[in-house]
Amino acid sequence: MSAIQKVLILGGGFAGLEVARGLAGAPVEITVIDRQNYHLFQPLLYQVATAGLSPADIASPIRSVLSGQQNVSVLLARVANVDLARKLVTTDQGEAPFDTLVVATGARHAYFGHDEWEPFAPGLKKIDDATDIRRRILLAFERAESEPDLVVQTELLTFVVVGAGPTGVEMAGAIAELSRRSLSRDFKRIDPRMARIVLVEAGPRVLPSFDPALSAKAERALTDIGVEVRTGTAVTACDRRGVAFGAERLPSRTVVWAAGVRASPAAKWLDAEADPSGRVIVGPDLRLPGRDDVFVIGDTAHVAGPDGRPYPGVAPVAKQQGRQVAHQIRYGLSRPFRYRDFGSMATIGRKRAVAQLGPLRLSGFPAWLLWSVAHVYFLIGFRNRLVVALTWAWAYITWQRGTRLITGGSRPASERDLSTAQGVRRGRAA
Amino acid sequence: MSAIQKVLILGGGFAGLEVARGLAGAPVEITVIDRQNYHLFQPLLYQVATAGLSPADIASPIRSVLSGQQNVSVLLARVANVDLARKLVTTDQGEAPFDTLVVATGARHAYFGHDEWEPFAPGLKKIDDATDIRRRILLAFERAESEPDLVVQTELLTFVVVGAGPTGVEMAGAIAELSRRSLSRDFKRIDPRMARIVLVEAGPRVLPSFDPALSAKAERALTDIGVEVRTGTAVTACDRRGVAFGAERLPSRTVVWAAGVRASPAAKWLDAEADPSGRVIVGPDLRLPGRDDVFVIGDTAHVAGPDGRPYPGVAPVAKQQGRQVAHQIRYGLSRPFRYRDFGSMATIGRKRAVAQLGPLRLSGFPAWLLWSVAHVYFLIGFRNRLVVALTWAWAYITWQRGTRLITGGSRPASERDLSTAQGVRRGRAA
Repeated sequence: MSAIQKVLILGGGFAGLEVARGLAGAPVEITVIDRQNYHLFQPLLYQVATAGLSPADIASPIRSVLSGQQNVSVLLARVANVDLARKLVTTDQGEAPFDTLVVATGARHAYFGHDEWEPFAPGLKKIDDATDIRRRILLAFERAESEPDLVVQTELLTFVVVGAGPTGVEMAGAIAELSRRSLSRDFKRIDPRMARIVLVEAGPRVLPSFDPALSAKAERALTDIGVEVRTGTAVTACDRRGVAFGAERLPSRTVVWAAGVRASPAAKWLDAEADPSGRVIVGPDLRLPGRDDVFVIGDTAHVAGPDGRPYPGVAPVAKQQGRQVAHQIRYGLSRPFRYRDFGSMATIGRKRAVAQLGPLRLSGFPAWLLWSVAHVYFLIGFRNRLVVALTWAWAYITWQRGTRLITGGSRPASERDLSTAQGVRRGRAA
Repeated sequence: MSAIQKVLILGGGFAGLEVARGLAGAPVEITVIDRQNYHLFQPLLYQVATAGLSPADIASPIRSVLSGQQNVSVLLARVANVDLARKLVTTDQGEAPFDTLVVATGARHAYFGHDEWEPFAPGLKKIDDATDIRRRILLAFERAESEPDLVVQTELLTFVVVGAGPTGVEMAGAIAELSRRSLSRDFKRIDPRMARIVLVEAGPRVLPSFDPALSAKAERALTDIGVEVRTGTAVTACDRRGVAFGAERLPSRTVVWAAGVRASPAAKWLDAEADPSGRVIVGPDLRLPGRDDVFVIGDTAHVAGPDGRPYPGVAPVAKQQGRQVAHQIRYGLSRPFRYRDFGSMATIGRKRAVAQLGPLRLSGFPAWLLWSVAHVYFLIGFRNRLVVALTWAWAYITWQRGTRLITGGSRPASERDLSTAQGVRRGRAA
């Protein structure tokens, strides 16, 4: 083993990237492993899914984000396991040894034990998820346009978003705007403004992590732009014809899942104790209990806050943890992590958002403006910020959505049996 | 049959769109059928394939391009056949009747009877082709970075472009710039500037449709930026380890096909006479011989020019044909088509291009500037023009390429057997 300390970071998300950056100039040899070549600004992924932004607007190659930093290598590989005894990580590209390991591999969406729902209710974590959902939403309008059966047409024009956290709220709001505004003039046989958008939440209110007064404001804003909000409603079944809540069925051809996440299999790799969401339970200094050389952070980690409850899986927590781990590695320290909460925001659509910043509660246009400025500011890379700012300014003026492209393969289950055309007679060859 | 004339346009490319637009306000009922929901500005597709532009920058939904026109419906469907006797087109969405039919379904790349080469040498016609090629090029650099075997590493860093028409020349130039400039600082173990880019052409010179003096200038410009040009070299075999020219093998893991096109199966649908490239041979007024009610235009049509040779498959020919067909339909005319050739351009990279405009011959920076302005100008939709202009301006200043994302599924043949990592030991689990 070389004299220089090898720091191996698994995951190039907010947490992992912050560790690498925090070790700039330190006498260590850093390797960042990710199975994607890009760092993704996940808070805006719903805009890709709803045709507002292009994938490249919210993603940058990890390599180019870190290219200025001499002590970092980046490796595109998929982690298979961690060998704590031999201090190495196995990947599909070979083994990587470490002196210090940082696990920041994030989370995927979870179906509460119903993984069979996934093909019918895709979640939103990767760029490919977003372009898949975009394809489904846009295809639903296309199919509805040529569908002679009014029952099927109604199903095609019903969109269900499951889960009313920030992602679900933002998705539902964006689909409503897409249908009410951007598409409204483009179809001849259907009226996209008649599309039904239903936001389903098992808990008692939307945005459960926000102040109840803001939840109420958000719900009103959603209703204003045409979203049906159904709180206290748990999904009990999901297939290609829609969802069910107990005995009640809601027929829909497009369901988006924003209801829950499950941590990456880090607990299994590390043979560590996990909470029910699969997050590795770490000590206050973000280390794996009993190991000085292994840190787990971000959405993969369960870190207890001052009230005993774990910190939420949001970008600011991940970034602050990353910064602290870098500091601890650089100076060989052990310090308890304290999250400095600057606030939370969620947007419902054009000019509507809610924000809570310490004691401050904002809603409506001021919250929306703050949200826009903050998100453009935090986007990595000046070019992305510029393009996003211009795209938004343009969309604000014109209501147009620039990336309405149906690309990529089709998943058979959701696309077949969408019958024949109208105006255009029922076909022999269909 | 209703009293109002039904005009059915197959294909929303340059030709088909121009017919629809040319019939704005005419007392006809137009339906545009395309299997994609977008109109694609194909001349810039190579920039998507080389990470310069996002798909949405060069594509607009056909619906939204035509949304202002009252007499047009757009249908997303795949054409199965044409029934000339019953005057209807069968699609996977049912049947569409017509009084007048315009076939403008374009062309795909052709492998001269070797369709088995396609998985190893993808061509560039659709957006999904471009993102696939982008993924392959970027993955080759990623794999080379972690490849311990120097022979394999060299194969990974060898890029072959087959065919030196405008698309092939532009692809080769863009890959050269990507490797020489955009990626040059991002890798630690390989030097992307050492990548070998080989442009292979069976004919005697690059850009065969241009003036020989400009071909020579283009070849010199390609050599200057590091492209090996091999003219008079025909590919005789192609597999996942590279290409062969007779007895000589050129090992490469990334081959791009820009060598030939084959028209869509319109000749089969129409049971019409076709030339060896599959293009339907039409009369001087662009009608199918013997049919007053069927037009074939664009890359699908073989229209003899004044010298007896067919007009080339380029956007200006398609657009002018579309305009003329609209005119003939509107006024019930029959007029011979004459192509008004304003010139041709091809770009080799930053500040390098060739252009011939009537008697004028341009090369170097003036040609490049003209090329840039013309391409931005012809892009559909103001937002796209603005974004492309800004993206290019930004790339010009920084040499950055903003869309270096590896997305989408993998085709197993080209990705497996890329062995293990370096620096990072050969793995058990690999």
